[in-house]
Amino acid sequence: MVHADASNFVEGITKEQAYTQVLLQAEGLFDDQRNWVCNLANAASLLWHAYKSLPSPSNQVNWAGFYVLDPKATQSKSQLILGPFQGKVACQTIAFGKGVCGTAAESQTTQLVPDVEQFPGHIACDGDSRSEIVVPIVVASEGGAGKLVAIIDIDCADLEGFDEVDKKYLEKLAELLARSCDW
Amino acid sequence: MVHADASNFVEGITKEQAYTQVLLQAEGLFDDQRNWVCNLANAASLLWHAYKSLPSPSNQVNWAGFYVLDPKATQSKSQLILGPFQGKVACQTIAFGKGVCGTAAESQTTQLVPDVEQFPGHIACDGDSRSEIVVPIVVASEGGAGKLVAIIDIDCADLEGFDEVDKKYLEKLAELLARSCDW
Repeated sequence: MVHADASNFVEGITKEQAYTQVLLQAEGLFDDQRNWVCNLANAASLLWHAYKSLPSPSNQVNWAGFYVLDPKATQSKSQLILGPFQGKVACQTIAFGKGVCGTAAESQTTQLVPDVEQFPGHIACDGDSRSEIVVPIVVASEGGAGKLVAIIDIDCADLEGFDEVDKKYLEKLAELLARSCDW
Repeated sequence: MVHADASNFVEGITKEQAYTQVLLQAEGLFDDQRNWVCNLANAASLLWHAYKSLPSPSNQVNWAGFYVLDPKATQSKSQLILGPFQGKVACQTIAFGKGVCGTAAESQTTQLVPDVEQFPGHIACDGDSRSEIVVPIVVASEGGAGKLVAIIDIDCADLEGFDEVDKKYLEKLAELLARSCDW
C-alpha cells in the first residue's frame, strides 16, 4: 500500500469510525518509527483528512496539529512551540497558562471549548476559528507525576465543533503518541 | 495581524508574486525564531496555500513539505526522515540516493522531474503524484563542503508541474531556511 492511502477515508462513515481508522493507521505507522517529528507530521495528516471526510461541523476543522514543549523554555517559564500541522500559518510559541493551548499544557487536562471567544485569554492565531479542542500528551516521569511533552490542537470554523466523542478518541491518540515516540 | 493571514494569497497573482510573498512572510516569521520544526511547519503551510491560489498546474500540488537528515542515520548509511508537511500521509524514511528525494540529498542538487515514472527508482508514496521538485537545504560545515540538513519536496498530480521559476524561488527558500534555523 502506498502511504497516502492511509489518508483516504470512505465518505459516509461516522466520527467514531473515522477516529478508529486514524488510530489503527497511526499504530501501524508508529510501529517501526519512534521519531516524534515524523510521527506527529503523519498524525496531523490523518486527523485532517478524517475531519474532511465527515459531515459538518467536523469538516469545518480549519487547523489540526501539534505544539510541543519548547526545548529553549526554562523550568520557571515553560512554553509551547509549534510542531507539525495541517492548515494555515500558526502562532510560533504559546506560554504555559495562556489561552486554550497553554491552559491544557499547564493543567494537563483536555480543554473542550465550544466558543473560543468565551475562553479567557484566547489567542487568535486565526480569526476564522470558532471552537477548539486541546488534548495534552503526557509521558510518565521519574518523580511519578506526568510530564507534558506536547498537545494536540484542533480548531473549527463552526461553533461547538467538538464533543465528548472527539475528546475520547483524541485522548486515545494522545496516549498512543505518548508511548510511541521518543520525546 | 493574526498569523493565519500569512497563508492568504490574492487570486490572480503570478507564480513569481506568490513565491515572493512566501519568501517575505517566511523571513518575517523566522526573524525571531530559529527552531527548525516550527519554521518548517509554517513554511510548508505558506507553500501549500501559495500553490492553491495559483492556476493549473501549480494548484494541482498534492504534497508540500520537508524531509530532514535522520538523526539515527549513520555516516555509512545516511537517510532522510519525514518532517513537517501539508498533504496526505507520507513515507517515513528515504535512503540517500533512492528516488527523487534521496538523489537530491546525496547529490546536493535540485531535482526537477517532469514525469516521476521516468525517474529511475522513483518511490511512490502517493500514486496520484505525476511530477516533483526536490531542493536540498545545505549548511556550511567545518571542512568547507556543505552539509545536507533537509530537503524541500513538492509533488504535483499533473505532469510537468514545475519549471525554472519554481526552481529559482525554492532554492531561495532553501537558502533562507539554511541560515534561519538551528539545525
